[in-house]
Amino acid sequence: MKGRDAESGRALPHSNTLARTANLRPIITLTTDFGLKDWFAGTMKGVILGINPQAALVDITHEIRPGELRAGGFALAASCGFFPKGTVHLAVIDPGVGSQRRAIAVETTDYFFVGPDNGLLSLAIGQRKIKAIHLLENKEYFLQDLSRTFHGRDIFAPVAAHLSCGVGIGKLGPRVKDLMRITWPRARRIRNGVEGEVVYLDQFGNAITNIDRDRITGLAKQPLGIYFGAKCVCSFGAYYESVAKGIPIALIGSTGFVEIAVNGGSAAREFGIRAGDAVRLQC
Amino acid sequence: MKGRDAESGRALPHSNTLARTANLRPIITLTTDFGLKDWFAGTMKGVILGINPQAALVDITHEIRPGELRAGGFALAASCGFFPKGTVHLAVIDPGVGSQRRAIAVETTDYFFVGPDNGLLSLAIGQRKIKAIHLLENKEYFLQDLSRTFHGRDIFAPVAAHLSCGVGIGKLGPRVKDLMRITWPRARRIRNGVEGEVVYLDQFGNAITNIDRDRITGLAKQPLGIYFGAKCVCSFGAYYESVAKGIPIALIGSTGFVEIAVNGGSAAREFGIRAGDAVRLQC
Amino acid sequence: MKGRDAESGRALPHSNTLARTANLRPIITLTTDFGLKDWFAGTMKGVILGINPQAALVDITHEIRPGELRAGGFALAASCGFFPKGTVHLAVIDPGVGSQRRAIAVETTDYFFVGPDNGLLSLAIGQRKIKAIHLLENKEYFLQDLSRTFHGRDIFAPVAAHLSCGVGIGKLGPRVKDLMRITWPRARRIRNGVEGEVVYLDQFGNAITNIDRDRITGLAKQPLGIYFGAKCVCSFGAYYESVAKGIPIALIGSTGFVEIAVNGGSAAREFGIRAGDAVRLQC
Repeated sequence: MKGRDAESGRALPHSNTLARTANLRPIITLTTDFGLKDWFAGTMKGVILGINPQAALVDITHEIRPGELRAGGFALAASCGFFPKGTVHLAVIDPGVGSQRRAIAVETTDYFFVGPDNGLLSLAIGQRKIKAIHLLENKEYFLQDLSRTFHGRDIFAPVAAHLSCGVGIGKLGPRVKDLMRITWPRARRIRNGVEGEVVYLDQFGNAITNIDRDRITGLAKQPLGIYFGAKCVCSFGAYYESVAKGIPIALIGSTGFVEIAVNGGSAAREFGIRAGDAVRLQC
Repeated sequence: MKGRDAESGRALPHSNTLARTANLRPIITLTTDFGLKDWFAGTMKGVILGINPQAALVDITHEIRPGELRAGGFALAASCGFFPKGTVHLAVIDPGVGSQRRAIAVETTDYFFVGPDNGLLSLAIGQRKIKAIHLLENKEYFLQDLSRTFHGRDIFAPVAAHLSCGVGIGKLGPRVKDLMRITWPRARRIRNGVEGEVVYLDQFGNAITNIDRDRITGLAKQPLGIYFGAKCVCSFGAYYESVAKGIPIALIGSTGFVEIAVNGGSAAREFGIRAGDAVRLQC
Repeated sequence: MKGRDAESGRALPHSNTLARTANLRPIITLTTDFGLKDWFAGTMKGVILGINPQAALVDITHEIRPGELRAGGFALAASCGFFPKGTVHLAVIDPGVGSQRRAIAVETTDYFFVGPDNGLLSLAIGQRKIKAIHLLENKEYFLQDLSRTFHGRDIFAPVAAHLSCGVGIGKLGPRVKDLMRITWPRARRIRNGVEGEVVYLDQFGNAITNIDRDRITGLAKQPLGIYFGAKCVCSFGAYYESVAKGIPIALIGSTGFVEIAVNGGSAAREFGIRAGDAVRLQC
């Protein structure tokens, strides 16, 4: 699943052009698999506010299933572009915490990203122009006592806070050339259609695929069927209520990718769809 | 369930009188069925902070069950009055997103409300004096690229942010006379009692009814039984621990409505109560 | 489980020394069992922002199981030390709401704590130097209308907000000598080892015990087995990935206590561990 230098997915969709002006209040987003039951996310925020009291903290999600780098990476990539320029995106899904895996900060032309170097950041960064990648090695920007199990609190949160205060990324540690990248499945043209796979199931049970808007330009003028294997589950439409309640429909979702939905229901449950399932759009 | 001009519920309870002074920091609340697993709520916040970096963002809840307009409307009505004057209440439960359903902003004497015109806002607004209702049609206040499936991000969030910046509601689109209202069941007097129904089950399993404090004035001086059909499940008390652990009790809950609870347990589970169940208070 | 003057647990771990400087932006943390499904936590925030618009609000958790004072107390104790000096920690797990149980505010050398006097605050406070404890009796700092079921909104939130504005703790009500304390199980040395119990199961299924770092100094140089009864479930290591995927391991967790984990899995599920289970570390 992981592979250095492998190409990450296509650019995610339209982002917040209104917001692309410098923002005086520093924003830090959080994307983790820590859940909301325990004190983990709250503790990271305490550390951040101790360093930068002015930071606005925004949860992307803490409910990624433990260790699911792809789902976390997709959530980050789908949302990060809607934040103002200068936002620090902090992401911690870190099954290798305490081991030799590297920790990094990445500066792109619009944002900072901070997290473990395990591929989590790669989908969001694959859509952007990288200015610099640095290892997190300078302990001056960590908490004083480091645990071996919660670098979200001890390393990533304080580093993100310091970046949001204007600390230069070069101070964090040595510059490196690249980050670990998750291989991301690519959709491909087939005869009279496109073949891809389901990459994310959202909480409504919508099955988001890796087939983006551009891939189906031209195709979309003809009536398309959506197939799992030999089974055609639905046709293509524009919005959920363009079919009756309980009826499945495929459409371009808000991330710019084709998704399969059931109006007022759950496509995931209805068809037993799982992430990784192959899907075909065909005339 | 929906009906224009139908009357909405009685006023919800006591609100935060301490807070009824103008507040210099703009507040935007969020009430949705987007859940916390995905990036939807976080993305709306990114859009808002890109437009109004000073906004304080408060989640009412994102865990309303998909499409449950009544539950979402109740949550909003039960909480909105406790926010300072000028707060912008943003609510998005929007099964009709992308269809012809209207989008609105409502100014009352104390607040702004923004959301789809599907009845979601009507219970909260039914308790207040309306100053103006406007359609959201001016694209200047939307994101540039509009999806057909996520107007929370593309329309409602930016509009709420602009209102919180002081943009006049009249700039958003044409003024209209009324909003869609959900019909709300009304409790009624019966011989020696009141008859109503369960309108909300909270996470403790407390069953909140539509029988408000005023309805039982007078009655409350006599020993009251709470009935589901012929079955008397409990009597009336003042607080949860006024009965022993595991014992059911009815009381005036924090929303000002009669609720049925089990001390240290779940009335919903204990009695299999569901929203819509008829309930009777009788001597 | 409760007992006045009983000793609370040992100090929890390393805290945020970077953050121990005065912070100009007041912070209020929230720890409750209100859940995220309903409007309860959001309503408390509305009340707070009505009183102190500048407050930064941080959720520790709202997902403590209803009435679980120990779990809530542990979450608070594990996180509070990572917030800047002056933070107001508001905690409401309050099965006795409306009864005669007392409500208190506690000033320590670093923080304020506000909540019901039912032991919830005692573990966090047991680690700190108390400056003063006051009852919450002065209605000037409450909402005007008090419910009997939601003092989180009507009493605790406004009091916390007023403290964060600089209101002296002495204004809240009469000073008292002590607070209710939860008895906290203590680990004890046995031959060639330590005996303790599981005190918290986190969302990863890690079983956190009451055996702290200091207890196993010396012991840790020898190979230690972790026993539930006669069964040895794993040995001691340093971080999750120091064993292969699916393999259990005990380590010093981020709270400074020994925890039993399964790399990439759930120790709680794998071994059927529950809070209160006895555990032994032995050579």
